[in-house]
Amino acid sequence: MEVLPDRDSYYAGFNKGVWENEINVRDFIQNNYTEYKGDDSFLEGISENTEELWRKCLILFEEERKNGGVLDMDTRIISQITSHNAGYIDKNLEVIVGLQTDVPLKRSLQPFGGIRMAQASLQSYGYEIDPYVTEVFTKYRKTHNQGVFDAYTPEMKKARHAAILTGLPDAYGRGRIIGDYRRVALYGTDRLIEDKKLQHASIDGEMTDDKIQLKEEIAEQIKALGEMAELGDMYGFDIRKPAKSAREAVQWLYFGYLSAIKEQNGAAMSIGRTSTFLDIYIERDLKNGVITEKEAQEIIDQFIMKLRLVKFARTPEYNSLFSGDPTWVTESLGGMGTDGRSLVTKNSFRYLHTLENLGAAPEPNLTILWSVNLPVGFKEYCAKISIKTSSVQYENDDLMRPYHGDDYAIACCVSSMRVGKDMQFFGARANLAKCLLYAINGGVDEKLKEQVGPKFAPITSEYLDYDEVVAKYDDMLEWLAGLYVNTLNIIHYMHDKYCYERSQMALLDKDVKRYFATGIAGLSVVADSLSAIKYAKVKTIRDENNIVVDYEVEGDYPKYGNDDDRVDKIAVELVSKFMNMIRKHHTYRNSIPTMSILTITSNVVYGKKTGNTPDGRKGGQPLAPGANPMHGRDKNGAVASLASVAKLPFKDAQDGISNTFSIIPNALGKDEVFMGDLVCSLDCGCSSGNIN
Amino acid sequence: MEVLPDRDSYYAGFNKGVWENEINVRDFIQNNYTEYKGDDSFLEGISENTEELWRKCLILFEEERKNGGVLDMDTRIISQITSHNAGYIDKNLEVIVGLQTDVPLKRSLQPFGGIRMAQASLQSYGYEIDPYVTEVFTKYRKTHNQGVFDAYTPEMKKARHAAILTGLPDAYGRGRIIGDYRRVALYGTDRLIEDKKLQHASIDGEMTDDKIQLKEEIAEQIKALGEMAELGDMYGFDIRKPAKSAREAVQWLYFGYLSAIKEQNGAAMSIGRTSTFLDIYIERDLKNGVITEKEAQEIIDQFIMKLRLVKFARTPEYNSLFSGDPTWVTESLGGMGTDGRSLVTKNSFRYLHTLENLGAAPEPNLTILWSVNLPVGFKEYCAKISIKTSSVQYENDDLMRPYHGDDYAIACCVSSMRVGKDMQFFGARANLAKCLLYAINGGVDEKLKEQVGPKFAPITSEYLDYDEVVAKYDDMLEWLAGLYVNTLNIIHYMHDKYCYERSQMALLDKDVKRYFATGIAGLSVVADSLSAIKYAKVKTIRDENNIVVDYEVEGDYPKYGNDDDRVDKIAVELVSKFMNMIRKHHTYRNSIPTMSILTITSNVVYGKKTGNTPDGRKGGQPLAPGANPMHGRDKNGAVASLASVAKLPFKDAQDGISNTFSIIPNALGKDEVFMGDLVCSLDCGCSSGNIN
Repeated sequence: MEVLPDRDSYYAGFNKGVWENEINVRDFIQNNYTEYKGDDSFLEGISENTEELWRKCLILFEEERKNGGVLDMDTRIISQITSHNAGYIDKNLEVIVGLQTDVPLKRSLQPFGGIRMAQASLQSYGYEIDPYVTEVFTKYRKTHNQGVFDAYTPEMKKARHAAILTGLPDAYGRGRIIGDYRRVALYGTDRLIEDKKLQHASIDGEMTDDKIQLKEEIAEQIKALGEMAELGDMYGFDIRKPAKSAREAVQWLYFGYLSAIKEQNGAAMSIGRTSTFLDIYIERDLKNGVITEKEAQEIIDQFIMKLRLVKFARTPEYNSLFSGDPTWVTESLGGMGTDGRSLVTKNSFRYLHTLENLGAAPEPNLTILWSVNLPVGFKEYCAKISIKTSSVQYENDDLMRPYHGDDYAIACCVSSMRVGKDMQFFGARANLAKCLLYAINGGVDEKLKEQVGPKFAPITSEYLDYDEVVAKYDDMLEWLAGLYVNTLNIIHYMHDKYCYERSQMALLDKDVKRYFATGIAGLSVVADSLSAIKYAKVKTIRDENNIVVDYEVEGDYPKYGNDDDRVDKIAVELVSKFMNMIRKHHTYRNSIPTMSILTITSNVVYGKKTGNTPDGRKGGQPLAPGANPMHGRDKNGAVASLASVAKLPFKDAQDGISNTFSIIPNALGKDEVFMGDLVCSLDCGCSSGNIN
Repeated sequence: MEVLPDRDSYYAGFNKGVWENEINVRDFIQNNYTEYKGDDSFLEGISENTEELWRKCLILFEEERKNGGVLDMDTRIISQITSHNAGYIDKNLEVIVGLQTDVPLKRSLQPFGGIRMAQASLQSYGYEIDPYVTEVFTKYRKTHNQGVFDAYTPEMKKARHAAILTGLPDAYGRGRIIGDYRRVALYGTDRLIEDKKLQHASIDGEMTDDKIQLKEEIAEQIKALGEMAELGDMYGFDIRKPAKSAREAVQWLYFGYLSAIKEQNGAAMSIGRTSTFLDIYIERDLKNGVITEKEAQEIIDQFIMKLRLVKFARTPEYNSLFSGDPTWVTESLGGMGTDGRSLVTKNSFRYLHTLENLGAAPEPNLTILWSVNLPVGFKEYCAKISIKTSSVQYENDDLMRPYHGDDYAIACCVSSMRVGKDMQFFGARANLAKCLLYAINGGVDEKLKEQVGPKFAPITSEYLDYDEVVAKYDDMLEWLAGLYVNTLNIIHYMHDKYCYERSQMALLDKDVKRYFATGIAGLSVVADSLSAIKYAKVKTIRDENNIVVDYEVEGDYPKYGNDDDRVDKIAVELVSKFMNMIRKHHTYRNSIPTMSILTITSNVVYGKKTGNTPDGRKGGQPLAPGANPMHGRDKNGAVASLASVAKLPFKDAQDGISNTFSIIPNALGKDEVFMGDLVCSLDCGCSSGNIN
């Protein structure tokens, strides 16, 4: 790689390393970052300009709410990296610039995923799509959604309609790709393009489809990097060369991210793990007297403010599935390095401090990579901010670091991946509770009263027999696993074909590791149902067509969430069993199958679509979120509940296990004592993924 | 398959067969056609209306010429099946209707293959493309051409620039797919859609990329069939149901073809083998007194007239490569059935007779599938029309029938394929003469003076040594074969991705056999060059950089085209050798590699780009066309010349071997005696492909 002719003007003061000769941000970080073990006393408050700017944003948010959920929407301009002129909230007040469109909060138009989705989201807010856009995207430019539906089998469509497969990213962006946006700051787009050109040239020899596909993708990535530089030009910055200051580093990084969200409206557009990287630039500027701490905080406050403004045009159905309009702009903070130092810097504090300077907010999704070895000062500040704002997510770094090393980040809420090296094909989830009902009814959907699954023999007895149910359930799970993987194969083939994430993939290595992420819903319902069948008596109640539509549980049974192995074992076995069934199948691009037990909000919708279950749960009631026990059934306290969840095998649910719970601060008193309690709880309990 | 509720109104008078229960046009033909062994005395002249209509066409052709080559061009409407309103030459005179655009001879705009090509063709005739089209096809809709260039390696671009690989279909449609347009007439689009839906459903189970691709393609085919029916509606015909009369059969079939040329501007848009099929409808109508012979001829005359109007927007470079503006609307006539009957019908005569009624014309490319066993009356009529119009092409049916059975047709000029069952990935050709020069100069191009091939050791001696040259040539051929196949892999991957022939493939079976057609140019130059090196003395003449730029041949040597095994063997071995090198490589979609020795016009351009050769040919002089001996070197007469060509192994050049020669009628007298001579020559000499 060409050495920058005037490298000192960019890299002066930085320690050398292999990062100079290859694209290697981790090496740059490891050679240059300054661990911080102190407390939060150094932090500065919000600047006047930032306060004024944020006030303007709050007014816009208020107007948006008054306006029914959106402030304005593009109906004609198709969102691309350079499709909009530079936009500002108030140019004079902004130290970090760049908006998704030319006006703050105006939702961009992204029809590549699906024109009908784009139309529907506009219509739901009273807007009409320009006929030009409809013409282009129906006559000349096929969309991801159209491609998927061209290839779906009737069985897939039925399973989707019945919601035994749910939340499939076939009408919205799959997300779960984190561009290594830090690369833009450290190297500038010129050098990244140079590197991508070498990658392109390195694919030679026998031209199989796989190679041709990758070659074309890299060509697209190169174009995206070129447009990224043009985007910088539009705002008056030349990001072709590396950033020279902290402000430029944040700005360059944000232009990388901005390019991604201009092209993609994925369900989770996470930002990665940027705070420690940026701290290096801030430390340099502070040392050289270029900026003050106040100015450093201002840059971070305004950067976070920009991330809070990220919005997509969604349909009401989408919003109901996700209980709101989340963007999952997840930033991963903290964590330990493989050399024993923590990756906590002053900038980790500055990021959290934005929740004080700007107030609490769910986005960006600030996620602590928690380790028992994190510096005490940082742990305490995390607890303080959690209690104060309820806006912090925790993940177990000690569990994930052995798999991923120390430069991974969280996409969305629990999916961990090495930054710049891994990506995920997001796959939503299969409803295992509904699958159990299919096993009992021979593939007939209990709500639609239609044959959706295969016509296996139904259970005909009045009382359910555990062994019979388990045998039939195994068969139905095998069917579901195959259908699920093959549905996802189609989705990801078409996503790559019609809605490829070129600006994000431009910031990843050439030979990325691809995860094929599956997910399950209804774990605790199934565990409890099978436990009821095994340890109590469950009587079936049939409708006029002999379909089992309800169950009567006679007697008590062990319930998941009480640290009772009799039922916890059922849950553990189910996770491993279904994961192994998933593993039997061909996965698109030979991606590595993983599974998550993760639903934070969508469990409510899934529950609505699932009939009565043998555990006594009534049809329509929510499933428990993620790996949570069913609401109210974990009667032995928080520790036993966590213990049940902790038994779930991470190797078979490597994409993450979520356990959502709240500790009500007032119950314990919002004081120093509680802060210590929370730190302690996290040290003990954050063992299987995220707690939020 | 659903039986037509009122099948008798469509199929009355037809003999039953499996064609009723499955899509099987051959079975319909075999069960229903009436072989004709008589002479041309039954034929009728042109009708008054048709004569008037043709006069109008001739005026349009004349205006087109005066206007510089095109009459008018679309600059805004993107050509699709239903993009244009119904268009007529003179509605009152037309018995067969349908134009590519809304006005005769107005060239349609087809940017899916490449927007720059579309722009360039417009500009070369003084038109400007509408900015809307440019916007759509640069910002939102990628083209075949762009896809290819995104994936090409630098080596491929160089080889293309140097013209060692030439005529690659990376900026124009690959053509060489023959839709079985007869299916539209026999079944109607409703039943074809029903069949395609079953095909779509039959692809299930493990969703590999191959399956997903095919599933999506069939979905696109179904849409194309739907639009085909809409096209019929626009002209006032319901082609959803089978044709009820001869006129409808021709009209239905033509709508199928019209859909193809509205969507594709392939280098060869052949029509197939339609005359015997249509004769069945004409025979039925004649028998029932629905039409007269005069009317039957009128339908065929007007059908052929429509095919003569087929035009595409091309660039001057394209036209210079093909010496004009050919469309290769090839129709295959005659041939023998596997049951011993010939497939000659009265309609085979009617098609040829259009050359008398409308006058001579190169298009449609009427091609006789010649067999020694064809009825004498037909043979004589072929000879008569050949002498009169020089507009007939001959292919050897006896050679091809054992490979393909009796329902194959010719695409373009020599490529044979079973109608509705096979397709070809057209691959233009590799210049083996230039490759020989690369072997001598160690991969340096003799004209560009640049390294294009691999840096193998060049020949350093003053006089060329046969064994050394052959050894080096083998290495260079291996390189070229690999590069060639992989370049084509990219082209066909991208053609399928960005410019898929859905309306043609909609009329083929699901599991088509795909040929991967390669081709070679310069065979006789190489044979003669190697013969000169072996049997005479060839001295190298070098430039200041030590590159061999010319050759002096001292003494005489055996020349290809004189039935001299010493040199013919070199040609034969070269063909087999290169084909086997081609076979070593992965081919897109596991297609079957074939090779052609075929250049009818482009040999002139190839020669221009090839330097001096060791046979004494001067740089820039044309290569010989196809498998022809070099001009003037076949001194032992036509029979010896044909004998040399006939030695070439068809198994290694299965895509066809062309030998272009003219017999000047006046030299023999334009009389009955000559007609007999020509029939005799064809019976003896039409052994290796086409003669035209």
